[in-house]
Amino acid sequence: MPSRYLSFRCSLPWLILLLQALFLIHSFFSFSGGLYSPSSFYPEFQDVNHMVIFGFGFFLMVLRRYGFSSTAFNFLLIVLGVQCCVLVEDLLLLSFLSCSLAKAVVSMTAVVISAGAVLGKANPVQLIVMTLVELILFYVSRCINKTLLQVPEHLTLMHVHLFGAYFGLAVSSRFPEPPPGLDKNRSTPKSDLFSMLGTVFVWVLWPSFNSVLADSKEEAVLNTYLALAVSAVAAFMLSALTSKDGKFRMTHIHSAVLAGGVTVSYTAHSIQHPWIAMILGLLGSGITILGSHCLQRCFNPALKLQDTSGVHFTFGLPAVLGAVAAVVLCVVEKGIAKQWNNLSSLGYLILVDVGAFCQTISTALVTGLITGLILNIKLLKTVHVSKYFDDQFYWEVSF
Amino acid sequence: MPSRYLSFRCSLPWLILLLQALFLIHSFFSFSGGLYSPSSFYPEFQDVNHMVIFGFGFFLMVLRRYGFSSTAFNFLLIVLGVQCCVLVEDLLLLSFLSCSLAKAVVSMTAVVISAGAVLGKANPVQLIVMTLVELILFYVSRCINKTLLQVPEHLTLMHVHLFGAYFGLAVSSRFPEPPPGLDKNRSTPKSDLFSMLGTVFVWVLWPSFNSVLADSKEEAVLNTYLALAVSAVAAFMLSALTSKDGKFRMTHIHSAVLAGGVTVSYTAHSIQHPWIAMILGLLGSGITILGSHCLQRCFNPALKLQDTSGVHFTFGLPAVLGAVAAVVLCVVEKGIAKQWNNLSSLGYLILVDVGAFCQTISTALVTGLITGLILNIKLLKTVHVSKYFDDQFYWEVSF
Amino acid sequence: MPSRYLSFRCSLPWLILLLQALFLIHSFFSFSGGLYSPSSFYPEFQDVNHMVIFGFGFFLMVLRRYGFSSTAFNFLLIVLGVQCCVLVEDLLLLSFLSCSLAKAVVSMTAVVISAGAVLGKANPVQLIVMTLVELILFYVSRCINKTLLQVPEHLTLMHVHLFGAYFGLAVSSRFPEPPPGLDKNRSTPKSDLFSMLGTVFVWVLWPSFNSVLADSKEEAVLNTYLALAVSAVAAFMLSALTSKDGKFRMTHIHSAVLAGGVTVSYTAHSIQHPWIAMILGLLGSGITILGSHCLQRCFNPALKLQDTSGVHFTFGLPAVLGAVAAVVLCVVEKGIAKQWNNLSSLGYLILVDVGAFCQTISTALVTGLITGLILNIKLLKTVHVSKYFDDQFYWEVSF
Repeated sequence: MPSRYLSFRCSLPWLILLLQALFLIHSFFSFSGGLYSPSSFYPEFQDVNHMVIFGFGFFLMVLRRYGFSSTAFNFLLIVLGVQCCVLVEDLLLLSFLSCSLAKAVVSMTAVVISAGAVLGKANPVQLIVMTLVELILFYVSRCINKTLLQVPEHLTLMHVHLFGAYFGLAVSSRFPEPPPGLDKNRSTPKSDLFSMLGTVFVWVLWPSFNSVLADSKEEAVLNTYLALAVSAVAAFMLSALTSKDGKFRMTHIHSAVLAGGVTVSYTAHSIQHPWIAMILGLLGSGITILGSHCLQRCFNPALKLQDTSGVHFTFGLPAVLGAVAAVVLCVVEKGIAKQWNNLSSLGYLILVDVGAFCQTISTALVTGLITGLILNIKLLKTVHVSKYFDDQFYWEVSF
Repeated sequence: MPSRYLSFRCSLPWLILLLQALFLIHSFFSFSGGLYSPSSFYPEFQDVNHMVIFGFGFFLMVLRRYGFSSTAFNFLLIVLGVQCCVLVEDLLLLSFLSCSLAKAVVSMTAVVISAGAVLGKANPVQLIVMTLVELILFYVSRCINKTLLQVPEHLTLMHVHLFGAYFGLAVSSRFPEPPPGLDKNRSTPKSDLFSMLGTVFVWVLWPSFNSVLADSKEEAVLNTYLALAVSAVAAFMLSALTSKDGKFRMTHIHSAVLAGGVTVSYTAHSIQHPWIAMILGLLGSGITILGSHCLQRCFNPALKLQDTSGVHFTFGLPAVLGAVAAVVLCVVEKGIAKQWNNLSSLGYLILVDVGAFCQTISTALVTGLITGLILNIKLLKTVHVSKYFDDQFYWEVSF
Repeated sequence: MPSRYLSFRCSLPWLILLLQALFLIHSFFSFSGGLYSPSSFYPEFQDVNHMVIFGFGFFLMVLRRYGFSSTAFNFLLIVLGVQCCVLVEDLLLLSFLSCSLAKAVVSMTAVVISAGAVLGKANPVQLIVMTLVELILFYVSRCINKTLLQVPEHLTLMHVHLFGAYFGLAVSSRFPEPPPGLDKNRSTPKSDLFSMLGTVFVWVLWPSFNSVLADSKEEAVLNTYLALAVSAVAAFMLSALTSKDGKFRMTHIHSAVLAGGVTVSYTAHSIQHPWIAMILGLLGSGITILGSHCLQRCFNPALKLQDTSGVHFTFGLPAVLGAVAAVVLCVVEKGIAKQWNNLSSLGYLILVDVGAFCQTISTALVTGLITGLILNIKLLKTVHVSKYFDDQFYWEVSF
């Protein structure tokens, strides 16, 4: 049925070419020098790169017939997005936020997470458009946080999980659901194994992710490591508690071991007592596994959402928890320091943090919905539901 | 047969919860500041982490139906064990040995090696109990070496392979043997391939492992690299020499390429002439391949041992060789320096080194046997022999 | 048919033993101290090691029945070759080129690339002989470039891709072609997936490769990263444009994403404007995909070449382009600096660069042809064509 095999030849390469030409022209005219920071910084930068490109490429390999596309499209989006980040930061608001490759790669995590929500449903043209729109919107959201709410710059970047997850969810709500009998959106033991290796890879490099832009790197690394360790332990515990027969379920492990790193991302650099990071890791893991049960049974069917790789409970919920925890910790710390006098300044602090959180999540949801609508116009060659989750639709596969 | 599928729901999660609660309470009261060392140290720490968690998780994937458990249980043990290490060091003998995350991860290698000996036979409850007991015992053994025998602290940690291998062997001797016709404890080409990728990953990061705690890092890295290179070359040579038709055997490569790193671990920081490290790598590889033939044909059947992933010849024998070599090298060096006068002080040195070695190996064997007996009590839900080496016993697997 | 299964027992182990003995004896007598550079350098060295051993081992896993051999022989050649490098540098021309492990590992890339050209066709004995000969010849070629043409030392090493690719091609032209109906030299989706993971792994670590020996590391990293990013983007674009139905072809992605790194290797440390690196990445990717079409359809059948893993267009053509670009850039830069006066000194510069390029490529081609002839003498146990691309010929495989 050649009519069904839509050719991307007339759209995709030209879109990519157009973008790449834009980046080139931009770099020709205005490349600022500050792309790259001191060399002591290089190992962490490499770790983050490795984690986002290789680790997440592996991590997303959950579907049985979508291995090529999972890894390769993740890679394509990142190499496009990183260049786009540099462009966006230069064009939009020249001097508000400084630019570096490391920040660009960290920003790309939002796109990688969103792409996980529509994994197997969006075609590359849609993914690329989504990448561009999302990066610009995330940048705008960061600018608002920075200029209006005076959030420190490296903290604005830590909303990356929150923004990515809810943007992705909102986008995915505009995609039609696959038919219930479909087999291709399930995993096999082999794909689960790959995906777990990817998870472990990401887990190991997460402390670098949380510390790469922080001022106090050592605290950030230590707190992240402890939070990750506790959330990994809790993942196994809760998986055995909640599943039938007390067996482990791979999807639990897959999502909950990383929850600690997400939860602690807002506060890793400032937590003074390791036990707080450990508690956050525990809570993060708990909310992920609880969320995966509630969301998949009640929330998602009610809203007709299909969140292919579970980004809502893997990244969204822990990020919400982390943002709440950041407010609480900040209040407690400041309150104790001032012996609970001068509570009005505390109120202001809360207002700012809550404001940044609400602004980010509502921007993500609203713009995500709009982006989802845009992505499903005829022009972008929407994939028919029967062709979802299938490498053969995009790749020349030989057996 | 639901009766056979023992549920771990009533034991495993609560055990993990109890431990995690303990760690949390402890960290709440007494976390010392010195968990983390200067940041110049971070890349090596990451390497060791990566090697122990990702590398060994990959490395242990030798069994055809045990991929999930090999990787995931390795991961669970490490995240529990690292926290446990910190607790143990704080509780037991407060100021004898200083504590850091890097040391905790290095200590965990002993548990990872022991777990390799009972791979597929011990259930997670047994593995966790073993982890706790082994870490405490290894810590005690290190304290004896340090306080009674005046071994420098970072050298006490280098007994980690010796302790891990012989403890694991002693534990595995208390597990019933699988029936001879069992097919599940064999590897497939696919699992061998995975395992080899893991071996190569571990190989690359081994110099960081040997140098992370050493004073003279450059010598440690250089000597370890050379020893590893020679043992890899010798592994191929000996494998082709000893197998039928002169073909290579994957298990040989799998175990012998790492032998050089183990052999040289005691002396990597102090060897002055690279050729000594190279000779040690050669001998390590030789003893591993020779050992794998002798042990699997004579020793193991005679003692009714089943050493699933061959830790005896992969880590045990090279560590013995390395300990002997350390004594010889120390004697020769000191002897030459003193022109072979004042031999009584030399005798004292030998006594100390041999004493530390004998104490470590005998502690490992005796306490391993006792631990093996404890692990096989009814309470810990021993796995029936027919359920050995099977992911489906622990995981919800969907096809 | 035991007669067909040639035993390597009488040749391979003894060859390895002889070499290893040589290295040991040499290291006993003459090991210079400068094997290892300052420790700030260690993370990059690890990256290069990781990339060459793990990354390329993964990368070469393209053939359906040759996974063990691809990874393991790559590993064997590197550990032998690194030692050999040290020996060669010490023996041949003592003080011309300084020696370090990092340089040895970088030099080994030439052998890895050449081995890719004869992947599945050369047996281990042939591969080892080729390694020795190629390392010596590459060293000689570097010496000529350095002493006669005054090329800076770290730039002489950057001819590694050029030398490796054309040496490998010339060698592979002397091997008989496999019969046209052979199925074993094709890839499967599984092997393609592995190979892509390896490619991504190599991609991530490539900036370390280009910067490990450079003086201005930051520029080298930044330029390489941008060139790689653009070439990855262009790879997807061109693959969709040139294939049927606008689908992606994995072999395109596989080879073209790395082209940018190769193209920019000569100039990464000296490019002042990032857009130049980006243009080079784009051109590199273009020449690779164009080359893969032309070479595989016209050039290779005409010359009866079979370049198993496509090293000609993956490494050869981008390296040629990079060498040309280096000359052009150098001329333009110097010309602008001198306002296009004193053109005779410019002519001299061009002469030197073009001379180094021509000397390297012609040495590679001529000596490669001779080496190919030597490798196919009876003594080296040539593999029969029907046994090409088969793990079972070299490994004890159990199912």
